[in-house]
Amino acid sequence: MNMIEVITAKRDKLSLTDEQIEFFVEGVTNGTIPDYQISALLMAIVLNGMDEREMTTLTLEMAKSGTQMDLSYMDGIPVDKHSTGGVGDKITPILLPLIATFGVETVKLSGRGLGFTGGTVDKFESIEGFNVEVDSKDFPELVKKTGMVISGQTPDLAPADKILYSLRDVTATVDSIPLIASSIMSKKIAGGAKAIVLDVTCGSGAFMKDIKMAEDLAKAMIKIGNLAGRKTIAVITDMDQPLGRFCGNILEMQEVVNTVTGKGEEDVIEVVTELAFHLIKLAGKDAGMSDEVLRAEIRARLSDGSCFEKYTELIKSQGGKVLASGAPVYVDKPFSCMNVCSPDSGYVQSVRADLIGKASVILGAGRLRKTDAIDYGAGIGFYVKVGDRVERGDALCALYHGEKSDVSEDKLFDAMELILEAYQIGPEKPEKKSSILSVIS
Amino acid sequence: MNMIEVITAKRDKLSLTDEQIEFFVEGVTNGTIPDYQISALLMAIVLNGMDEREMTTLTLEMAKSGTQMDLSYMDGIPVDKHSTGGVGDKITPILLPLIATFGVETVKLSGRGLGFTGGTVDKFESIEGFNVEVDSKDFPELVKKTGMVISGQTPDLAPADKILYSLRDVTATVDSIPLIASSIMSKKIAGGAKAIVLDVTCGSGAFMKDIKMAEDLAKAMIKIGNLAGRKTIAVITDMDQPLGRFCGNILEMQEVVNTVTGKGEEDVIEVVTELAFHLIKLAGKDAGMSDEVLRAEIRARLSDGSCFEKYTELIKSQGGKVLASGAPVYVDKPFSCMNVCSPDSGYVQSVRADLIGKASVILGAGRLRKTDAIDYGAGIGFYVKVGDRVERGDALCALYHGEKSDVSEDKLFDAMELILEAYQIGPEKPEKKSSILSVIS
Repeated sequence: MNMIEVITAKRDKLSLTDEQIEFFVEGVTNGTIPDYQISALLMAIVLNGMDEREMTTLTLEMAKSGTQMDLSYMDGIPVDKHSTGGVGDKITPILLPLIATFGVETVKLSGRGLGFTGGTVDKFESIEGFNVEVDSKDFPELVKKTGMVISGQTPDLAPADKILYSLRDVTATVDSIPLIASSIMSKKIAGGAKAIVLDVTCGSGAFMKDIKMAEDLAKAMIKIGNLAGRKTIAVITDMDQPLGRFCGNILEMQEVVNTVTGKGEEDVIEVVTELAFHLIKLAGKDAGMSDEVLRAEIRARLSDGSCFEKYTELIKSQGGKVLASGAPVYVDKPFSCMNVCSPDSGYVQSVRADLIGKASVILGAGRLRKTDAIDYGAGIGFYVKVGDRVERGDALCALYHGEKSDVSEDKLFDAMELILEAYQIGPEKPEKKSSILSVIS
Repeated sequence: MNMIEVITAKRDKLSLTDEQIEFFVEGVTNGTIPDYQISALLMAIVLNGMDEREMTTLTLEMAKSGTQMDLSYMDGIPVDKHSTGGVGDKITPILLPLIATFGVETVKLSGRGLGFTGGTVDKFESIEGFNVEVDSKDFPELVKKTGMVISGQTPDLAPADKILYSLRDVTATVDSIPLIASSIMSKKIAGGAKAIVLDVTCGSGAFMKDIKMAEDLAKAMIKIGNLAGRKTIAVITDMDQPLGRFCGNILEMQEVVNTVTGKGEEDVIEVVTELAFHLIKLAGKDAGMSDEVLRAEIRARLSDGSCFEKYTELIKSQGGKVLASGAPVYVDKPFSCMNVCSPDSGYVQSVRADLIGKASVILGAGRLRKTDAIDYGAGIGFYVKVGDRVERGDALCALYHGEKSDVSEDKLFDAMELILEAYQIGPEKPEKKSSILSVIS
């Protein structure tokens, strides 16, 4: 077999055989296939697609290109959750302790943020002393202690996916459902999960801009999961405005504390409840509760102190500093330096989350390049959300930077311009929309 | 501008702007665009195509990526001819002296053979002493002396095309009309031609397997030529059997001598006459003859000795050794080592020229890799052609190797198998078909 034959087959719209996909992934992992042949195949896949079997084989081959985690020490069925990313998405830090109160154990491997979406690892790093580089040998002990562990992805997890991803990034071959789906699922499968809940974000602040694309991606991942013997459920969630009241690392972690102490925003609570519901059921930890009772119980634990207690346990177990109250100590303090005010009176129709994300990156909350430093205190707070009434001159949102940092006037101005572009104000009050657009399994 | 934007545009089926194409070709030439980005764009072009303007801009940018030859010293309008390649294609060595007898001057830059099609440069190198590496500074003097010069392509002619071609070869991105058309036309335009006649071969022994594909390629090149201000005519010629009686380097050059001394095969004469006709007219050297008279005159010069005289002049002017008779001296002598006999009685229906070409390469007449050595004496002679009657046991063709070389029995057997597969014998006498399938301008 040679790589030219493999490229030719996909160029000519044929299905690649399992042997061809295996040959490709092995060659990528070992470095025996040159970049220019990899990128030619990637473009052929972007344009000619892949069927379910091809996607599944690609996923499984990438999953076994490196270490495959064994979670057999866990109590119950090992579950995992993945979000396709959004702006203001602070779900993971809430969800992990929440389901831990039901006895659902998790090993969560998360990435750093790049571009306009934030990364869970960056958010946890905004807590003083919190260690996100946990040695995988220590996972069982941490899981035994608190029921959960959160860590950056190890380089030996699905290395073929890492190589492909970095090449896709520079060859305009990111936008492809088979490539996105197999990339996500390969990491979940290598991570040892036997059941997977996917949060497929949809809207201006997500990779998938419309519901059709989001559902197509969800269906592709569910098919891969099922063919690979992993029960998989996808929750399509709205990302047509930022999630919750804040974006930015410390700002979001402060909102996490609000949420796990019963003072959360409804959109955040909706999403976290739906994901927790499916994870608890898949892990077999619903203790025979009816769906209705289980959902009510999940919401209750966000305000009865049990989730907050678990959250504090998680922070402490990974070296994070906490106050006597149980709330974390952060590496910096957000400083509100400017308000952006509404140029019109009316109702907020929509808030383009991608532009908010970009504004947030300009303020220092995110990275454009992998090597960029982050201002953990930077970000944006939203005074109003979709459906709220504003008058001309009312504050729409507050811009933040960390007390230890500063932001130039030019950047503040650039951020403000993006935010004004993001907010659509109109005369009619828009209909209220659920944050859960659909659930697919 | 950056390359990711250019790739994204073509991936999304947009037309590339002139600036984007210029940026791409410059980056390829200077080596500032990495191979993996080039190959991603090439695959996107293969799958999403290019319109006429894009092809023309790509052609002109590649043409000006290196030296552009100035043929203003020539008498009349500088013309050039290009063939898309075939098996047994010995047109150029006949055509050049033939049109020179009408005062049409040519500088012919030719390539070496690779795969199952032969190269004109290899054929001339089978003549003792013939120099195919002529310094371009000597072109005017040689043209003044004999009216023609034949030389290998200089590395500074359309270097962007060379880089792209070598990458296409290993990334399954050869099969693309915009890429093939712009590659051919860029070299012709850089070579200085103001009018171009294209021999687009069509059939089993050509790159274009059917008339539709051949005409599409021809039309693309004509459009490029016309948009670039070069009058361009395409002659679609039949390559559903090898051209003439022989393939192999010395064997073909011997057939050239037969043809220019009035003993040529009709298919060779037909093609060479048609191409000569258009070249003479485009160069403005038809001296007011009617089309009918001009065609008759062209044929006449193949047998009245004038073309042979010019041919001898050409050989001598580039250092080639000739006998007192005017015929060249070759570097070796073909030795007929075996006949392949017909397994059936009937009429020859077709001869798959690609398989004949492959058999010829096995015998040593061609190269699989650029670095392979050639046995100039090797090749195949055809006793019968399409339409001829054979009886079971009659010889179909003769296999040759050079007297200075040898061929293993295994290889002879492999070649024989391919030849038996190539010849289709059937009960009905097939209709006689012209070698000229169509002429497009």
